[in-house]
Amino acid sequence: MVEQHTQRPTRVRLIEVGPRDGLQNEPHPVPLSAKHQLLEDLADAGLDYLEAGSFVHPQRVPQMADSDALFQAMNRRCGVTYAALTPNMKGLERALAVGADEVALFAASSETFSQKNINCSIAESLERFAPVIAAATNAGLPVRGYISCVLGCPYEGAVTPGAVLTLTRELLAMGCREVSLGDTIGVGTAGDTERLLAHLLPEVGPERLAVHFHDTYGQALANILVALNAGIATIDSAVAGLGGCPFAPGAAGNVATEDVVYLLNGLGIEHGVDLDKLILAGERICSVLERDNASRAARAYLNRRT
Amino acid sequence: MVEQHTQRPTRVRLIEVGPRDGLQNEPHPVPLSAKHQLLEDLADAGLDYLEAGSFVHPQRVPQMADSDALFQAMNRRCGVTYAALTPNMKGLERALAVGADEVALFAASSETFSQKNINCSIAESLERFAPVIAAATNAGLPVRGYISCVLGCPYEGAVTPGAVLTLTRELLAMGCREVSLGDTIGVGTAGDTERLLAHLLPEVGPERLAVHFHDTYGQALANILVALNAGIATIDSAVAGLGGCPFAPGAAGNVATEDVVYLLNGLGIEHGVDLDKLILAGERICSVLERDNASRAARAYLNRRT
Repeated sequence: MVEQHTQRPTRVRLIEVGPRDGLQNEPHPVPLSAKHQLLEDLADAGLDYLEAGSFVHPQRVPQMADSDALFQAMNRRCGVTYAALTPNMKGLERALAVGADEVALFAASSETFSQKNINCSIAESLERFAPVIAAATNAGLPVRGYISCVLGCPYEGAVTPGAVLTLTRELLAMGCREVSLGDTIGVGTAGDTERLLAHLLPEVGPERLAVHFHDTYGQALANILVALNAGIATIDSAVAGLGGCPFAPGAAGNVATEDVVYLLNGLGIEHGVDLDKLILAGERICSVLERDNASRAARAYLNRRT
Repeated sequence: MVEQHTQRPTRVRLIEVGPRDGLQNEPHPVPLSAKHQLLEDLADAGLDYLEAGSFVHPQRVPQMADSDALFQAMNRRCGVTYAALTPNMKGLERALAVGADEVALFAASSETFSQKNINCSIAESLERFAPVIAAATNAGLPVRGYISCVLGCPYEGAVTPGAVLTLTRELLAMGCREVSLGDTIGVGTAGDTERLLAHLLPEVGPERLAVHFHDTYGQALANILVALNAGIATIDSAVAGLGGCPFAPGAAGNVATEDVVYLLNGLGIEHGVDLDKLILAGERICSVLERDNASRAARAYLNRRT
């Protein structure tokens, strides 16, 4: 018998992270005009949440050094949320100065990754975030919390669902609107995702959770299917599977938005995105970056037309 | 809440189709020695069902013209099934002459694909198969039935679950041991797979069914997860995602055995395959074929080691 999936959402919100998570590791500078065009193309395709930039120290992430300029230059669409990463008060001030619609913070579920990624312990990161979340909220900006390495850490290996639950609970208590569960290195499988969500969902409602998968081991869509079946209705993805390092084979990027949209179409789940326009958006940015399109659905569509 | 998957099998049988379905469309002749090595490597990795060749007319599939020689030269391992495609009596005679352990037949679930692929209607194909199945069974050879295009046809578009059920019923009634449901062009999603299996499983037990996905649109692992959740315990796959045409971007091959094994490991489902050895097998044949390894899990593992 095939199971009935009564919890599966009828509509999903796609959080497009290509302009930020996708581009931040590109080895060559991406022109501001190309970033601007990407935002335009993604909004044209119907995506209504664009993670557009990152207000971090320019020396740490040079590719995002022009986020202020991008926010100032961009053509704001009605109904589209333009979000940015703000790891500290300085970042939040920059985000407020240019009028970001929403901000996001990054915590890690492993101590070693926290140290390597944001130079502090998990507890210290939460102390640092508290005033940022409070100030953002006072300014009327919703805050999104990210948790990295929820299904595995490159330094520590396995991460327990309990560690993720503790951090999720704290980020929500501190005022985050939702928490995005990130399998940063893409090692998780459907089984891991089931175990994690089985631990979280009795306490945290699915409306407070998003999933953020990387397709490093090809498991992202199967993981997303598990999340959908559990009632989660917010999915992070990047057009053309941007992300990772194009010079390191195997260091795959985010799950491709096109592949997610193709899955959702087949499941009859609404998302508001025009797949044809999305594919063109992906092709345009891949052409700028001189990299292959990592979306299998996009490649299949493009191949079918020729 | 995360669903309980009580029907999910505890052990899965992997049908390795790389040596046949994977290699048959390669544009350059693959040396017999490389095919022999591939079978050795796959058996070393623990795969116990190898679809080794195809006894079709050499002009139709030149790449398989040496299947007789391959079967005669191969080093038969105890406990490994060496299978071959035998579309007609002539093919079956060749398979019997070289001692194939099992044979397979191909039917299509769309009339146009049947005409284009095997030059006859679906009804005519069944008439042609009847004496082949009978003769194979008389000779003690089990017969596997394939159905192509179960989730979509490149000429007709949608294929109804009813058409697949009718054909499945007939192939099993004619004596096929099991029927492998093939999404030949890789267009199916988890939703399509659910709808197909919901139509088949009330009549056909999951132990009579296998699934055969191509990763053209990146959906294969999500589809396999649906099949596992419905109790299906036989999965076709090809090492390194062999198959398709390497000169046509987007014409992806079979789902990569490595990616399936990685999924099964995470789900705690037994399969008997050593992933490290499997990755080496995939790397060796990709090197011979001068093509990229299409397994994301394999690329991620190899990248992690460097």
